[in-house]
Amino acid sequence: MSIKQFVENSLGRWRSQRSAHHLTFSHFEAVQSVIDIVALSPDDEAVISLCQSYKIDPTEAVMPFQMTWEGQSDWDENAEVKGSCILVPIPDPTVPNRGKLLRDQGYAETIAAVGDYHITEDETFVLLTTYDRAAAEEKIWFANPNLRFRVSLIKTSGGSGVVTASFASEIRSLSGK
Amino acid sequence: MSIKQFVENSLGRWRSQRSAHHLTFSHFEAVQSVIDIVALSPDDEAVISLCQSYKIDPTEAVMPFQMTWEGQSDWDENAEVKGSCILVPIPDPTVPNRGKLLRDQGYAETIAAVGDYHITEDETFVLLTTYDRAAAEEKIWFANPNLRFRVSLIKTSGGSGVVTASFASEIRSLSGK
Repeated sequence: MSIKQFVENSLGRWRSQRSAHHLTFSHFEAVQSVIDIVALSPDDEAVISLCQSYKIDPTEAVMPFQMTWEGQSDWDENAEVKGSCILVPIPDPTVPNRGKLLRDQGYAETIAAVGDYHITEDETFVLLTTYDRAAAEEKIWFANPNLRFRVSLIKTSGGSGVVTASFASEIRSLSGK
Repeated sequence: MSIKQFVENSLGRWRSQRSAHHLTFSHFEAVQSVIDIVALSPDDEAVISLCQSYKIDPTEAVMPFQMTWEGQSDWDENAEVKGSCILVPIPDPTVPNRGKLLRDQGYAETIAAVGDYHITEDETFVLLTTYDRAAAEEKIWFANPNLRFRVSLIKTSGGSGVVTASFASEIRSLSGK
Protein backbone atom coordinates (compact mmCIF):
# COMPACT_ATOMS: atom_id res chain seq x y z
CA MET A 1 0.00 0.00 0.00
CA SER A 2 1.30 3.45 -0.91
CA ILE A 3 1.18 6.44 1.42
CA LYS A 4 -1.24 8.08 -1.02
CA GLN A 5 -3.64 5.16 -0.71
CA PHE A 6 -3.22 4.99 3.05
CA VAL A 7 -4.10 8.65 3.52
CA GLU A 8 -7.00 8.36 1.07
CA ASN A 9 -8.39 5.44 3.07
CA SER A 10 -8.07 7.52 6.24
CA LEU A 11 -10.01 10.56 5.03
CA GLY A 12 -13.32 11.19 6.74
CA ARG A 13 -14.83 11.38 10.18
CA TRP A 14 -14.00 8.68 12.73
CA ARG A 15 -15.44 7.89 16.14
CA SER A 16 -12.51 6.82 18.25
CA GLN A 17 -12.55 4.68 21.38
CA ARG A 18 -9.06 4.82 22.90
CA SER A 19 -7.57 3.10 25.92
CA ALA A 20 -4.28 4.29 27.34
CA HIS A 21 -2.25 2.03 29.59
CA HIS A 22 0.02 4.04 31.86
CA LEU A 23 2.43 1.22 32.46
CA THR A 24 4.42 2.47 35.42
CA PHE A 25 1.36 2.57 37.64
CA SER A 26 -1.03 0.18 35.81
CA HIS A 27 -3.61 2.88 35.20
CA PHE A 28 -6.30 2.58 32.52
CA GLU A 29 -7.51 5.74 30.81
CA ALA A 30 -10.51 5.74 28.46
CA VAL A 31 -10.92 8.44 25.84
CA GLN A 32 -13.79 8.88 23.42
CA SER A 33 -13.33 11.34 20.60
CA VAL A 34 -14.29 12.34 17.11
CA ILE A 35 -11.46 12.63 14.60
CA ASP A 36 -11.74 14.41 11.27
CA ILE A 37 -9.15 13.77 8.59
CA VAL A 38 -9.36 16.15 5.65
CA ALA A 39 -7.16 16.36 2.55
CA LEU A 40 -5.30 19.61 2.00
CA SER A 41 -4.23 21.04 -1.30
CA PRO A 42 -0.47 20.77 -1.95
CA ASP A 43 -0.74 24.51 -2.66
CA ASP A 44 -2.08 25.21 0.82
CA GLU A 45 -0.03 27.95 2.41
CA ALA A 46 0.38 26.01 5.68
CA VAL A 47 1.68 22.96 3.78
CA ILE A 48 4.19 25.05 1.84
CA SER A 49 5.45 26.85 4.91
CA LEU A 50 5.79 23.57 6.89
CA CYS A 51 7.87 22.09 4.03
CA GLN A 52 10.00 25.22 3.87
CA SER A 53 10.64 25.16 7.61
CA TYR A 54 12.31 21.75 7.04
CA LYS A 55 14.04 22.97 3.86
CA ILE A 56 12.02 20.48 1.81
CA ASP A 57 10.76 21.26 -1.68
CA PRO A 58 6.92 21.45 -1.33
CA THR A 59 6.51 19.61 -4.66
CA GLU A 60 7.81 16.47 -2.90
CA ALA A 61 4.71 16.42 -0.65
CA VAL A 62 2.10 13.68 -1.28
CA MET A 63 -1.45 13.87 0.08
CA PRO A 64 -1.01 16.45 2.85
CA PHE A 65 -3.88 16.40 5.32
CA GLN A 66 -5.28 17.96 8.43
CA MET A 67 -6.32 15.99 11.48
CA THR A 68 -8.66 17.49 14.08
CA TRP A 69 -9.82 15.71 17.22
CA GLU A 70 -12.16 16.51 20.04
CA GLY A 71 -13.14 14.27 22.92
CA GLN A 72 -13.36 13.44 26.55
CA SER A 73 -11.12 11.43 28.86
CA ASP A 74 -12.21 9.66 32.04
CA TRP A 75 -8.86 10.62 33.59
CA ASP A 76 -9.86 14.23 34.01
CA GLU A 77 -13.42 14.84 32.96
CA ASN A 78 -12.97 18.57 32.97
CA ALA A 79 -10.07 18.51 30.56
CA GLU A 80 -11.14 18.52 26.97
CA VAL A 81 -9.03 16.42 24.62
CA LYS A 82 -8.89 18.70 21.63
CA GLY A 83 -6.41 19.59 18.95
CA SER A 84 -5.56 19.89 15.32
CA CYS A 85 -2.44 19.42 13.25
CA ILE A 86 -1.26 19.44 9.67
CA LEU A 87 0.59 16.40 8.38
CA VAL A 88 2.68 16.29 5.23
CA PRO A 89 4.06 12.98 3.88
CA ILE A 90 7.35 13.26 1.99
CA PRO A 91 7.99 9.88 0.34
CA ASP A 92 11.60 8.72 0.04
CA PRO A 93 12.16 8.54 -3.73
CA THR A 94 14.71 5.74 -3.33
CA VAL A 95 12.77 3.28 -1.13
CA PRO A 96 9.14 2.24 -1.71
CA ASN A 97 6.56 2.98 1.02
CA ARG A 98 8.99 4.80 3.25
CA GLY A 99 9.53 8.47 3.97
CA LYS A 100 9.17 11.37 6.35
CA LEU A 101 6.03 12.77 7.89
CA LEU A 102 6.15 16.46 8.76
CA ARG A 103 3.78 17.64 11.43
CA ASP A 104 3.19 21.18 12.59
CA GLN A 105 2.34 20.03 16.08
CA GLY A 106 3.23 16.71 17.74
CA TYR A 107 1.29 14.47 20.08
CA ALA A 108 3.76 14.12 22.89
CA GLU A 109 5.01 17.68 22.81
CA THR A 110 3.28 20.65 21.27
CA ILE A 111 6.07 21.49 18.88
CA ALA A 112 6.62 20.76 15.21
CA ALA A 113 8.01 17.29 14.60
CA VAL A 114 9.27 15.15 11.80
CA GLY A 115 8.78 11.39 11.91
CA ASP A 116 9.95 8.47 9.80
CA TYR A 117 7.20 6.31 8.35
CA HIS A 118 7.07 3.04 6.50
CA ILE A 119 4.25 0.79 5.41
CA THR A 120 4.82 -2.90 6.08
CA GLU A 121 4.06 -5.86 3.83
CA ASP A 122 0.84 -6.46 5.75
CA GLU A 123 -0.27 -2.84 5.20
CA THR A 124 0.47 -1.45 8.63
CA PHE A 125 1.55 2.18 8.67
CA VAL A 126 4.39 2.60 11.17
CA LEU A 127 5.58 6.03 12.33
CA LEU A 128 8.58 6.72 14.54
CA THR A 129 9.06 10.21 15.94
CA THR A 130 11.88 11.33 18.18
CA TYR A 131 11.33 14.31 20.42
CA ASP A 132 13.75 16.00 22.79
CA ARG A 133 12.65 14.10 25.85
CA ALA A 134 10.57 11.25 24.41
CA ALA A 135 10.03 9.05 21.39
CA ALA A 136 6.71 7.95 19.91
CA GLU A 137 5.88 4.88 17.84
CA GLU A 138 2.54 4.54 16.10
CA LYS A 139 1.08 1.63 14.16
CA ILE A 140 -2.12 2.11 12.21
CA TRP A 141 -3.93 -0.52 10.17
CA PHE A 142 -7.36 -1.14 8.69
CA ALA A 143 -9.52 -4.13 9.63
CA ASN A 144 -11.91 -3.09 6.87
CA PRO A 145 -12.51 0.22 5.03
CA ASN A 146 -14.66 1.52 7.91
CA LEU A 147 -12.60 0.35 10.88
CA ARG A 148 -9.02 1.18 11.70
CA PHE A 149 -6.84 0.47 14.70
CA ARG A 150 -4.02 2.54 16.12
CA VAL A 151 -1.42 1.51 18.69
CA SER A 152 0.69 4.36 20.05
CA LEU A 153 3.67 3.97 22.34
CA ILE A 154 5.28 6.85 24.20
CA LYS A 155 8.85 5.89 25.04
CA THR A 156 11.65 7.44 27.01
CA SER A 157 14.03 9.39 24.82
CA GLY A 158 16.44 6.44 24.68
CA GLY A 159 13.57 4.46 23.18
CA SER A 160 13.91 1.41 25.44
CA GLY A 161 11.30 2.10 28.11
CA VAL A 162 7.64 2.40 27.19
CA VAL A 163 5.81 4.85 29.45
CA THR A 164 2.36 4.74 27.89
CA ALA A 165 0.81 2.30 25.42
CA SER A 166 -2.50 3.21 23.91
CA PHE A 167 -4.92 1.48 21.58
CA ALA A 168 -7.65 3.14 19.56
CA SER A 169 -10.52 1.54 17.66
CA GLU A 170 -11.71 4.02 15.07
CA ILE A 171 -15.05 3.50 13.35
CA ARG A 172 -15.94 5.54 10.30
CA SER A 173 -18.88 7.80 10.96
CA LEU A 174 -21.17 7.13 8.04
CA SER A 175 -23.85 9.53 9.17
CA GLY A 176 -21.68 12.54 8.28
CA LYS A 177 -21.60 15.38 10.76
CA MET B 1 11.90 -14.68 13.92
CA SER B 2 11.06 -18.38 14.16
CA ILE B 3 8.12 -19.77 16.11
CA LYS B 4 10.62 -21.46 18.44
CA GLN B 5 12.22 -18.13 19.26
CA PHE B 6 8.85 -16.41 19.61
CA VAL B 7 7.61 -18.97 22.13
CA GLU B 8 10.94 -18.90 23.99
CA ASN B 9 10.69 -15.11 24.30
CA SER B 10 7.16 -15.51 25.65
CA LEU B 11 7.98 -17.96 28.44
CA GLY B 12 7.55 -16.65 31.96
CA ARG B 13 5.09 -14.77 34.10
CA TRP B 14 3.44 -11.65 32.70
CA ARG B 15 1.30 -8.97 34.34
CA SER B 16 -1.30 -8.07 31.77
CA GLN B 17 -3.31 -4.87 31.51
CA ARG B 18 -5.99 -5.41 28.90
CA SER B 19 -8.65 -3.10 27.47
CA ALA B 20 -11.51 -4.51 25.46
CA HIS B 21 -13.52 -2.27 23.17
CA HIS B 22 -17.00 -3.64 22.60
CA LEU B 23 -17.53 -1.81 19.36
CA THR B 24 -21.25 -2.14 18.87
CA PHE B 25 -22.02 -0.24 22.03
CA SER B 26 -18.77 1.70 22.63
CA HIS B 27 -18.12 0.00 25.94
CA PHE B 28 -14.66 -0.09 27.55
CA GLU B 29 -13.74 -3.09 29.65
CA ALA B 30 -10.56 -3.19 31.76
CA VAL B 31 -9.00 -6.49 32.76
CA GLN B 32 -5.95 -7.04 34.92
CA SER B 33 -4.47 -10.50 35.03
CA VAL B 34 -1.42 -12.60 35.54
CA ILE B 35 -0.41 -14.89 32.69
CA ASP B 36 1.99 -17.80 33.02
CA ILE B 37 3.52 -19.30 29.91
CA VAL B 38 5.36 -22.55 30.53
CA ALA B 39 7.14 -24.83 28.06
CA LEU B 40 5.85 -28.39 27.80
CA SER B 41 7.83 -31.42 26.79
CA PRO B 42 7.01 -32.70 23.30
CA ASP B 43 6.52 -36.04 25.06
CA ASP B 44 3.81 -34.60 27.28
CA GLU B 45 0.74 -36.81 27.08
CA ALA B 46 -1.60 -33.84 26.56
CA VAL B 47 0.54 -32.61 23.65
CA ILE B 48 0.57 -36.02 21.98
CA SER B 49 -3.16 -36.53 22.38
CA LEU B 50 -3.92 -33.02 21.03
CA CYS B 51 -1.79 -33.75 17.93
CA GLN B 52 -3.47 -37.10 17.47
CA SER B 53 -6.93 -35.57 17.70
CA TYR B 54 -5.98 -33.53 14.59
CA LYS B 55 -4.28 -36.53 12.97
CA ILE B 56 -0.92 -34.74 13.13
CA ASP B 57 2.33 -36.57 13.83
CA PRO B 58 3.43 -35.35 17.31
CA THR B 59 7.05 -35.19 16.13
CA GLU B 60 6.06 -32.19 13.97
CA ALA B 61 5.32 -30.13 17.11
CA VAL B 62 7.76 -27.32 18.00
CA MET B 63 7.88 -25.72 21.46
CA PRO B 64 4.49 -26.74 22.84
CA PHE B 65 3.47 -24.67 25.82
CA GLN B 66 0.80 -24.11 28.41
CA MET B 67 -0.78 -20.76 29.08
CA THR B 68 -2.61 -20.06 32.35
CA TRP B 69 -4.31 -16.79 33.22
CA GLU B 70 -6.12 -15.43 36.22
CA GLY B 71 -7.50 -11.96 36.67
CA GLN B 72 -10.30 -9.55 37.26
CA SER B 73 -12.50 -7.55 34.93
CA ASP B 74 -14.25 -4.29 35.75
CA TRP B 75 -17.19 -5.47 33.64
CA ASP B 76 -18.34 -7.95 36.23
CA GLU B 77 -16.26 -7.79 39.36
CA ASN B 78 -17.66 -11.04 40.64
CA ALA B 79 -16.67 -13.00 37.58
CA GLU B 80 -13.15 -14.30 37.73
CA VAL B 81 -11.26 -14.29 34.46
CA LYS B 82 -9.46 -17.58 34.72
CA GLY B 83 -8.38 -20.33 32.41
CA SER B 84 -5.65 -22.50 31.01
CA CYS B 85 -4.91 -24.04 27.65
CA ILE B 86 -2.28 -26.06 25.87
CA LEU B 87 -0.91 -24.71 22.61
CA VAL B 88 1.06 -26.71 20.08
CA PRO B 89 2.76 -25.02 17.09
CA ILE B 90 3.05 -27.16 13.96
CA PRO B 91 5.32 -25.30 11.51
CA ASP B 92 4.58 -25.63 7.81
CA PRO B 93 7.68 -27.37 6.43
CA THR B 94 7.26 -25.68 3.04
CA VAL B 95 6.89 -22.01 4.11
CA PRO B 96 9.13 -20.25 6.65
CA ASN B 97 7.52 -18.79 9.80
CA ARG B 98 4.07 -20.08 9.01
CA GLY B 99 2.07 -22.98 10.35
CA LYS B 100 -0.80 -24.20 12.48
CA LEU B 101 -1.38 -23.66 16.17
CA LEU B 102 -3.37 -26.37 17.91
CA ARG B 103 -5.17 -25.41 21.07
CA ASP B 104 -7.07 -27.63 23.43
CA GLN B 105 -9.40 -24.80 24.37
CA GLY B 106 -10.09 -21.59 22.46
CA TYR B 107 -10.68 -18.06 23.66
CA ALA B 108 -13.95 -17.29 21.95
CA GLU B 109 -15.50 -20.72 22.45
CA THR B 110 -14.46 -23.30 24.97
CA ILE B 111 -13.71 -25.98 22.42
CA ALA B 112 -10.51 -27.19 20.83
CA ALA B 113 -9.40 -25.02 17.93
CA VAL B 114 -6.76 -24.92 15.26
CA GLY B 115 -5.48 -21.58 14.01
CA ASP B 116 -3.15 -20.48 11.23
CA TYR B 117 -0.15 -18.44 12.32
CA HIS B 118 2.56 -16.53 10.57
CA ILE B 119 5.32 -14.25 11.76
CA THR B 120 5.70 -11.06 9.74
CA GLU B 121 8.90 -9.37 8.58
CA ASP B 122 8.67 -6.96 11.52
CA GLU B 123 8.40 -9.87 13.99
CA THR B 124 4.71 -9.71 14.72
CA PHE B 125 3.09 -13.06 15.43
CA VAL B 126 -0.31 -13.19 13.69
CA LEU B 127 -2.88 -15.90 14.47
CA LEU B 128 -6.16 -16.43 12.65
CA THR B 129 -8.67 -18.86 14.11
CA THR B 130 -12.05 -19.69 12.66
CA TYR B 131 -14.75 -20.97 14.97
CA ASP B 132 -18.28 -22.09 14.14
CA ARG B 133 -19.90 -18.77 14.90
CA ALA B 134 -16.91 -16.39 15.10
CA ALA B 135 -13.38 -15.74 13.93
CA ALA B 136 -10.48 -14.44 15.98
CA GLU B 137 -7.38 -12.56 14.88
CA GLU B 138 -4.49 -11.98 17.23
CA LYS B 139 -1.31 -9.97 16.77
CA ILE B 140 1.45 -10.22 19.34
CA TRP B 141 4.77 -8.38 19.28
CA PHE B 142 7.56 -7.43 21.64
CA ALA B 143 8.53 -3.82 22.38
CA ASN B 144 11.50 -5.18 24.31
CA PRO B 145 12.25 -8.58 25.93
CA ASN B 146 10.17 -7.65 29.00
CA LEU B 147 7.19 -5.99 27.34
CA ARG B 148 4.83 -7.46 24.80
CA PHE B 149 1.63 -6.22 23.22
CA ARG B 150 -1.33 -8.19 22.02
CA VAL B 151 -4.22 -7.02 19.86
CA SER B 152 -7.14 -9.46 19.61
CA LEU B 153 -10.13 -9.06 17.36
CA ILE B 154 -13.28 -11.13 17.66
CA LYS B 155 -15.07 -11.08 14.33
CA THR B 156 -18.36 -12.38 13.03
CA SER B 157 -18.00 -15.77 11.37
CA GLY B 158 -17.87 -14.16 7.93
CA GLY B 159 -14.83 -12.28 9.18
CA SER B 160 -15.94 -8.83 8.01
CA GLY B 161 -17.46 -7.35 11.16
CA VAL B 162 -15.36 -6.84 14.26
CA VAL B 163 -17.41 -7.26 17.44
CA THR B 164 -14.68 -6.77 20.03
CA ALA B 165 -11.17 -5.35 19.75
CA SER B 166 -8.87 -5.73 22.69
CA PHE B 167 -5.38 -4.57 23.50
CA ALA B 168 -3.11 -5.98 26.18
CA SER B 169 0.14 -4.57 27.54
CA GLU B 170 2.04 -7.44 29.13
CA ILE B 171 4.98 -6.70 31.40
CA ARG B 172 7.30 -9.50 32.44
CA SER B 173 7.11 -10.15 36.15
CA LEU B 174 10.76 -10.20 37.20
CA SER B 175 10.03 -10.81 40.85
CA GLY B 176 9.00 -14.41 40.14
CA LYS B 177 5.88 -15.64 41.89
